[in-house]
Amino acid sequence: MNPVALDSVETRLRYTDENCTIKGALEIVGEKWSLLVLREAFFGIRRFDDFHRAMGCARNLLSDRLAKLVDHGVLERVAYREPGQRTRHEYHLTEKGLDLQPALVALMQWGDRWTADADGPPVEIRHRGCGAKVDAVLACEEGHGALAPRETEAVPGPGARLAAA
Amino acid sequence: MNPVALDSVETRLRYTDENCTIKGALEIVGEKWSLLVLREAFFGIRRFDDFHRAMGCARNLLSDRLAKLVDHGVLERVAYREPGQRTRHEYHLTEKGLDLQPALVALMQWGDRWTADADGPPVEIRHRGCGAKVDAVLACEEGHGALAPRETEAVPGPGARLAAA
Repeated sequence: MNPVALDSVETRLRYTDENCTIKGALEIVGEKWSLLVLREAFFGIRRFDDFHRAMGCARNLLSDRLAKLVDHGVLERVAYREPGQRTRHEYHLTEKGLDLQPALVALMQWGDRWTADADGPPVEIRHRGCGAKVDAVLACEEGHGALAPRETEAVPGPGARLAAA
Repeated sequence: MNPVALDSVETRLRYTDENCTIKGALEIVGEKWSLLVLREAFFGIRRFDDFHRAMGCARNLLSDRLAKLVDHGVLERVAYREPGQRTRHEYHLTEKGLDLQPALVALMQWGDRWTADADGPPVEIRHRGCGAKVDAVLACEEGHGALAPRETEAVPGPGARLAAA
């Protein structure tokens, strides 16, 4: 694989995006309401009526997004039963779901910076250990970071595929 | 503001999501094709026909997403003119657009882990300085990281608003 950076039009267009993993991720979670369901799951919401109350969206839209996230293994349905009630289900984040936290925090901090009103951010993420504010940052495996865009480069990975001629 | 963590249903439901900045971010970039346009912009694509060739989507859909990203200041239209041709426009990432890199890399690494096929990831992000692989991670301002979800907590920020009773 040619390790030339994908930072010129000519180099980029040599490759197909058919197995792009940004696209793969977006096919599962790339819809506003799916990501808002996940936001609530990270806040500890687990039950349908609580998601509905927190998000204020239509019930059929919420059902649809929950079902899709369960189908893809991002949420897991877990049965529970209150005394005298029928069995219902909670929705718990799986390991696959928890692994979306950096993406959600990165979107939130972008929103904090570029969309928040004068009151400031409605939510902050803190490190439980020391209480300091948490950011989503880019860091390399040698420990350098936070890296700015110009300090990074995209290169073809092992799965890079040449585009059809 | 009460600094109680938003990790119980009761605490979460005390607040409204009307000024949620994840929602604010998603209203600008929370659509698959918008994020794929931005992916290409980070790869160095600037011209309409190159976006079209790289993404393989319908031209009117691409026009629509480019216009929306320009309207929101994520991309900037810059005029250029090839010899003998009419004036055309390129689309350049603004500071606001560049600031989306952690979110895109976080989505990509989630896709790499959970959606890539046996060939592996098609793209890797490297640190130009040392060549090591770059990840999107959560780190606190005291330098602790990469943090796992359980090491972090969400708390009401300065803009937190109580929900209507």
